[in-house]
Amino acid sequence: MRHGWHWAGAGPSRSGSNGRWGRRAMRSTTFEGALAVNDDEGASPDEGASTDNLTSLPTARIGPRPAPLEWASIAMDCPARTRYEVLLCHSLLRPDGSALLEAIGDRRALLVTTPTVDRLHGSAMRALLEKTNTVSTLVLDAREETKSMALVEAVVAEALSHGLNRRGLLISFGGGVCSDIVTLSASLIRRGVGHIRVPTTLIGQIDAGIGLKGAVNFRAKKSFVGCFHPPEQVLIDPAFLKSLPRRFLASGVAEAIKMGIARDVKLFELLESRSLELIMSGFDEPAAAGRELLQRSIWAMLDELRQNPYEDQGYERLVDFGHTFSPALEAAMGFGIHHGEAVAIDMALSATIARSLGLISSEVWQRIVNLLRTTSLPIFARPLELQLCRDALREACRHRGGSMNLVVPAGIGRAVFLKSRDEVPDSLLEESLACLSSYAVADS
Amino acid sequence: MRHGWHWAGAGPSRSGSNGRWGRRAMRSTTFEGALAVNDDEGASPDEGASTDNLTSLPTARIGPRPAPLEWASIAMDCPARTRYEVLLCHSLLRPDGSALLEAIGDRRALLVTTPTVDRLHGSAMRALLEKTNTVSTLVLDAREETKSMALVEAVVAEALSHGLNRRGLLISFGGGVCSDIVTLSASLIRRGVGHIRVPTTLIGQIDAGIGLKGAVNFRAKKSFVGCFHPPEQVLIDPAFLKSLPRRFLASGVAEAIKMGIARDVKLFELLESRSLELIMSGFDEPAAAGRELLQRSIWAMLDELRQNPYEDQGYERLVDFGHTFSPALEAAMGFGIHHGEAVAIDMALSATIARSLGLISSEVWQRIVNLLRTTSLPIFARPLELQLCRDALREACRHRGGSMNLVVPAGIGRAVFLKSRDEVPDSLLEESLACLSSYAVADS
Repeated sequence: MRHGWHWAGAGPSRSGSNGRWGRRAMRSTTFEGALAVNDDEGASPDEGASTDNLTSLPTARIGPRPAPLEWASIAMDCPARTRYEVLLCHSLLRPDGSALLEAIGDRRALLVTTPTVDRLHGSAMRALLEKTNTVSTLVLDAREETKSMALVEAVVAEALSHGLNRRGLLISFGGGVCSDIVTLSASLIRRGVGHIRVPTTLIGQIDAGIGLKGAVNFRAKKSFVGCFHPPEQVLIDPAFLKSLPRRFLASGVAEAIKMGIARDVKLFELLESRSLELIMSGFDEPAAAGRELLQRSIWAMLDELRQNPYEDQGYERLVDFGHTFSPALEAAMGFGIHHGEAVAIDMALSATIARSLGLISSEVWQRIVNLLRTTSLPIFARPLELQLCRDALREACRHRGGSMNLVVPAGIGRAVFLKSRDEVPDSLLEESLACLSSYAVADS
Repeated sequence: MRHGWHWAGAGPSRSGSNGRWGRRAMRSTTFEGALAVNDDEGASPDEGASTDNLTSLPTARIGPRPAPLEWASIAMDCPARTRYEVLLCHSLLRPDGSALLEAIGDRRALLVTTPTVDRLHGSAMRALLEKTNTVSTLVLDAREETKSMALVEAVVAEALSHGLNRRGLLISFGGGVCSDIVTLSASLIRRGVGHIRVPTTLIGQIDAGIGLKGAVNFRAKKSFVGCFHPPEQVLIDPAFLKSLPRRFLASGVAEAIKMGIARDVKLFELLESRSLELIMSGFDEPAAAGRELLQRSIWAMLDELRQNPYEDQGYERLVDFGHTFSPALEAAMGFGIHHGEAVAIDMALSATIARSLGLISSEVWQRIVNLLRTTSLPIFARPLELQLCRDALREACRHRGGSMNLVVPAGIGRAVFLKSRDEVPDSLLEESLACLSSYAVADS
């Protein structure tokens, strides 16, 4: 490996930096980390001479660089490169299935699952894992209501007693809450060990389980404590969907509808023709449609994520569609509503706002609402009132760096960001709420 | 910004990947994240056509990529680039000092400090911070004995009630334990907020406070829970060293001696001539020597760190010199020994081993031991017995990916890694221990 290095010459100009030792006379220096490429501009004159002959370390590492006579500031670059894979599998738990065993290799691992998943698939999973001698299992009562640091500490404690070293591995086998807890735990154990996800819910397979994030609630504040810690692999097996209750499946389909409306007209059309059948059959029939739904939804999610994997490149995220009013609605209904149901209501309201603004026609609005209804998703709920919406938009502004960034459809497969509160005055909100509410009543 | 993209063609060959949908027929695809460069090799044929004309999003973002018809696996690259600065300052707390205020800007921040630092510098710091209206202070009883998730949760709770948003900031104002807790807290709050360090101890200024890491102890396991979360800035002001007890200063000088022996002969010579004076004067006199010690030590540390900032590029770390036997010694003495003192004893033993192996001459050994004694650092302690050393070497092997990687001097300013336990047989260990112990007794 080649390590980069350069002198930044006179150093970047900094305003008002009094108090630093003789900054005029000294040079600022930049360290570049393990993955940096060499920068020829401003290379040190001693570049060639001092590279690797100062020590006789019996390794490939480059020897010490002599310190410059004086410096007032050093900048360190710490580039990190993480890569992960999302794999479509089938028959993951069959005795001859090997994708998971391959991923584990000879590493010591701890599999974390929930009581429900353990009841449904625990024995098959244990039979598979018996082929290794290195994996133990922890069943955790992981629900949105219990998602806290206490559960993370339970996982960390189990990892400690199971003797996980730095090569150790966590495996989450369950839905989004399970993978949230496992992701955060993995990021903390020995400053970060690997983790693999086997999502068993549709939301896990197309949304919560394929990203980089993990978080838990803290003192009633949702996801206040968390991390970015990409998994090594996500193993997607649609066979798990067959045992999901239909309400859970519909809730997952809401995230697919989100992607269809916001960016993939073909996904939307697929859902229009197949979502009911897929939900009724547990994604078993028609199998090709189920597969295409997964492929298109996962593709869309990863294509969005890759543009801003650490959410530090701005606050315009297409995946926030359906996720502006829904957090407040979920909070108001105290876990009495599923996440996907709240997302569906948020999308219905956002579409109504878009229609009021003339961004979509009545026909497009009707198609969106019809698809939500066909999927047996709600489009309205009582707590969705003006004050809740105002609070939600204020919170969105705060959370999104000062811009509201409300995502609304501009067609099927297209969306725009409404950046400022002025674009959605209270009168427009009230009108949209009234319209949606009366439609929902008339339609039910 | 330009986002990369390429088809990986037929995909990397994977052994035994049965169970994946029709892998032969399908293409594997690689997503590259926000910082990736384009890879011409294997570029998609539709590269030019589909880049940015599929949506009319009113932003600079690139529109959705259409999903391929079929895929069996997608690889996501998530490169991250973090940069931080280490600045030498003076008079940081003087009313006209601005380096810290500049770094904070208009952000909401929480400063975390310890009772001792608060007593010594709290009023000056508060007077400075009064110029902002955004910084509150938390005094935390942060000691090695109390360094746990409970203290991290205390910081997180305070950040929540102080209303820190994603732009929020933590500031650690204290020694290595304080910055450990703040680093880990910052990494967790809202999935990572920024933090700034103002280290007040010598170890903080040249070692623990200038790296990327933070950790706390978990159920008696040292640093079992932690993270890599680089600070934005580290502000080094040697004026803080003046109020440090001499034993703390000497303990910090041990880390400078480590760098001198392992890689900087000029630093070693500087220490030989000045370490006593600097410790007696609280690093005030001679000021130029104090400054050079800081500059050389920090330089050496960052030059080592940059080669392996996330410790995922191998287990040969020169900074592990003095850190193989010392953790076991610290554990055996139950915090009755300072970290730097344990490091000094470890270095003395490692040097003795190196002399027994013929890697250094008796003269070099004598210079090393003399410098430790001049600095009023210990070179031996009772619990350092054969069994402790054997356990420590076994733990080092486990922790360093199977190789022992004991760092021993090969001269002044040069070190080598002893990779295997065979190179240090029990007989050699016993001989070295006996030699060091009798020298220490005769010399005291």
